[in-house]
Amino acid sequence: MNRKILEPKYGRLLDDFRVGDVYHHPWEVTIDDGMLAMFAASFLDPNPLYSSTRFARDLGFRDRVVHPLVMLNLALSFTVHDVSEQAIAHLAYIDLKFPNAAYSRDTLSVYSEILGIRLSESKRDRGVVHLRTTAVNQNGLVLLIFERKALVPVGKLAGRAHPVQPAAEGLTPRPLSTSSEAVALPPELVTEIKTPQWPGRPIGSYRDFDRGDTILHTLGHTVGESEHMQLTILTRNSHPLHFDEVYCRDRSFAKTRVVEGGLVFAWAASLASRDTTANALWDLGYDKGSHPAPVLSGDTLYAASQVLDKREHGAQTGIVRFKLVGVKNETPASLLRRGVDLFDGKFEQKVFEIEREVLLALRS
Amino acid sequence: MNRKILEPKYGRLLDDFRVGDVYHHPWEVTIDDGMLAMFAASFLDPNPLYSSTRFARDLGFRDRVVHPLVMLNLALSFTVHDVSEQAIAHLAYIDLKFPNAAYSRDTLSVYSEILGIRLSESKRDRGVVHLRTTAVNQNGLVLLIFERKALVPVGKLAGRAHPVQPAAEGLTPRPLSTSSEAVALPPELVTEIKTPQWPGRPIGSYRDFDRGDTILHTLGHTVGESEHMQLTILTRNSHPLHFDEVYCRDRSFAKTRVVEGGLVFAWAASLASRDTTANALWDLGYDKGSHPAPVLSGDTLYAASQVLDKREHGAQTGIVRFKLVGVKNETPASLLRRGVDLFDGKFEQKVFEIEREVLLALRS
Amino acid sequence: MNRKILEPKYGRLLDDFRVGDVYHHPWEVTIDDGMLAMFAASFLDPNPLYSSTRFARDLGFRDRVVHPLVMLNLALSFTVHDVSEQAIAHLAYIDLKFPNAAYSRDTLSVYSEILGIRLSESKRDRGVVHLRTTAVNQNGLVLLIFERKALVPVGKLAGRAHPVQPAAEGLTPRPLSTSSEAVALPPELVTEIKTPQWPGRPIGSYRDFDRGDTILHTLGHTVGESEHMQLTILTRNSHPLHFDEVYCRDRSFAKTRVVEGGLVFAWAASLASRDTTANALWDLGYDKGSHPAPVLSGDTLYAASQVLDKREHGAQTGIVRFKLVGVKNETPASLLRRGVDLFDGKFEQKVFEIEREVLLALRS
Repeated sequence: MNRKILEPKYGRLLDDFRVGDVYHHPWEVTIDDGMLAMFAASFLDPNPLYSSTRFARDLGFRDRVVHPLVMLNLALSFTVHDVSEQAIAHLAYIDLKFPNAAYSRDTLSVYSEILGIRLSESKRDRGVVHLRTTAVNQNGLVLLIFERKALVPVGKLAGRAHPVQPAAEGLTPRPLSTSSEAVALPPELVTEIKTPQWPGRPIGSYRDFDRGDTILHTLGHTVGESEHMQLTILTRNSHPLHFDEVYCRDRSFAKTRVVEGGLVFAWAASLASRDTTANALWDLGYDKGSHPAPVLSGDTLYAASQVLDKREHGAQTGIVRFKLVGVKNETPASLLRRGVDLFDGKFEQKVFEIEREVLLALRS
Repeated sequence: MNRKILEPKYGRLLDDFRVGDVYHHPWEVTIDDGMLAMFAASFLDPNPLYSSTRFARDLGFRDRVVHPLVMLNLALSFTVHDVSEQAIAHLAYIDLKFPNAAYSRDTLSVYSEILGIRLSESKRDRGVVHLRTTAVNQNGLVLLIFERKALVPVGKLAGRAHPVQPAAEGLTPRPLSTSSEAVALPPELVTEIKTPQWPGRPIGSYRDFDRGDTILHTLGHTVGESEHMQLTILTRNSHPLHFDEVYCRDRSFAKTRVVEGGLVFAWAASLASRDTTANALWDLGYDKGSHPAPVLSGDTLYAASQVLDKREHGAQTGIVRFKLVGVKNETPASLLRRGVDLFDGKFEQKVFEIEREVLLALRS
Repeated sequence: MNRKILEPKYGRLLDDFRVGDVYHHPWEVTIDDGMLAMFAASFLDPNPLYSSTRFARDLGFRDRVVHPLVMLNLALSFTVHDVSEQAIAHLAYIDLKFPNAAYSRDTLSVYSEILGIRLSESKRDRGVVHLRTTAVNQNGLVLLIFERKALVPVGKLAGRAHPVQPAAEGLTPRPLSTSSEAVALPPELVTEIKTPQWPGRPIGSYRDFDRGDTILHTLGHTVGESEHMQLTILTRNSHPLHFDEVYCRDRSFAKTRVVEGGLVFAWAASLASRDTTANALWDLGYDKGSHPAPVLSGDTLYAASQVLDKREHGAQTGIVRFKLVGVKNETPASLLRRGVDLFDGKFEQKVFEIEREVLLALRS
């Protein structure tokens, strides 16, 4: 008998990737109300589109819509097993869009295509992988699509346990654009929009935002240790950096567990939500996102937004473009008082930045 | 271009309130099984009315009933955005009733009316706001109604971002009383009650309780850091005292995060549940509740009950009136051995007290 | 008036048990998607039978199947109130089987029969209780059956508050065997099995495992404090060892809270799942399980598997028998390098061991 000792490994090193490869990530997960509650327990967001079946139905959806940042966290985490379980860092979010609404009890599948591989010029032991990730429901409808870049060590992974991939047949995503203007709007919002009554709603229609406005959000959130690990595992992120303290003692750049980036993204957006997107009809997309500094359990996160631009969109709605930043352990108001350039500056408290566009009713 | 720097604030200071004002709180939330599971993961309660669809249906309800203290926590937390996000403390629970059953997938809306405003006589920089809060489902049916008092600093809040409130038209709650005897019973329990079989149920019918009995509950619960923050956010409580450590370092009376009062209430009730309400048919109401001392993450909570009174109610059921107290970091048995007056005394370990009435079958 | 002071206690001491007694545990719980999400947030498992409605339906089930280790944790925890709330330790898992699939919204009831009572020969103040526990759904269908042994102090429990048990009429479980070969297979898998397509699935059909193979699983999991307490309460485990720090300071062998054994079991299995059971069609059973050392919050768990045996089962499937071990705070690879006998040795890092059989398709 040939007694083998195996130590199966997942993810890939730089030389394991080839441009054009498509990975079907193994997690196939039915989204459920439990998942939505666990996200609602960390990310405060008043927009009833995501929390109220009554409101969402009145707006034309068949149920409350799964929060876009639940979707981003699921899709990003699903890719780790194949793409970034050996990665050093997540570098960038690019052109993230939500072309269709996701609902509880949809079953989510995710696949990624390798768009580019580039050796680092400054550090020759690592390189950048550029990929496009697509999430589809049980009917093949695209729920989310985005690109990202990850920093990966060079080499080929010994003990890699992935099966040979089947051909990517039948996996071409359906055309994304559902609107003639190429704005990623779900079909429910392409026709006339009748915003449902919502007593008590916070301020925030299109006309409330002016180009150049800075909004210092006052809410903060101290990250709990169990909290961030549970959300990481719930979304099927398999990188030990987030939940294996023994691994992290030797191999984490922070010498301890680091909070998963998609969660930091979701915290920044949720801390801004009451002042910006409480009345948003749709998250049209995110772009140019990155994590300049890590977040650890016990850090307190804050957010600030700047209105970059706005334009009317049809007779009823307008699009506002925000820059969103996340900072840690000091309020945006305090940083600003100290002369920090919140939106364009580099400073140690900055943990996240991204640009986003949201669709808002012209008036409330 | 007029580049503004905004720092939107929520809640109100004493001079922002007017008697008769009605606030429609912005959170509109569909209750779901995820929310129920997260509460079940912190609050042990054997009563199958809240956990078993089989039992609840046999008793005449259409599904298991959402636990009354889930409802209290949701309704209380929903009010914070408008009422108490700037408050110093929550002072009192008054006349809390549950006139109708709530179910998973009901959509909850909450509004509050200001009943009174009073400047503190001892400390002139603060005052007491007295309000009545009503929670309704998507059909306008009243699920919960209660009054509370909060301690609020004097002044008007600069940067207050609430929209002007629409008129409170159509918001008069339906009459509460569904029984000729003015006991807040849901319609399902007004007719003849056939208690379903429940193998293995703990002791606790009407005849098992005698006036004057003291029950020292042995179960304790150490509060987890992530646990209490997640439940606070899940219920949409927006007061930074509970989840923003940077805010708390300067502005919390405890210099750190403080556990939300509604959760302490729920822990006291759940720690008592196995010995008192395992067989309760309905929580008829709570009154005269307060939090004499704060609870921090890591504190261990215990509870004790005293039978204040009992009376028969119809041919099948009786009503038992309990005093319920919550204490921290020492068992009620130990406190009693040291001569502490658990129910009427003041002592540093006492974190909660309230009176409650429950409907019980006369015999099991 | 006779004012009594009561301190109701639960569980039993050795002399409270009689062979043949049947306890109907008081918890009657409808399994829900919230419960599944909370387990999914701690126990990473790629098998789509448990996560994907699409996959489970294509395999012949009516919905995704509740994970067997959710079922084990519920059933084990339900017994604590009657059996082991006063116990010193949980000693052994014996002959654990899952004869039928459980689904979300099934209502679970659990009862236990005392099979044996034996005084310890070395320490005369304690003894071993041997019981068989059965979990049934609302239709009386057996979902899980297992035996276990617990170490209990001698004596009779003063203040024991359990009601006198009704006769065990009508509680004989239905015959377990649904297959002529006495393998505990649910009806859905007794006929021809058509394994659904699953793009991206990890390696792991019958032919991938060879007798004697050792698999060192690389994933670890650091146990969160809130995380393990929430899962303990969610499953209705009422032993204060797991969530009452004041109790534990005096009465825990570890002087602090100890992670519930069923959770350690589930972590070991989940950490092994990507390399062993990602493609399993059914968990045929576990046997000879024990916890040689305790796990505390903050410990990091790892797992290793050994292929003990394999045999074909019909034309399409085979059965692989694994030994599964769980270790803490050092990787299995590191322990092996230091010469530790992972599977048959005794060493301080070993926190769990068990044997298991899984049904696998012959080829993928």
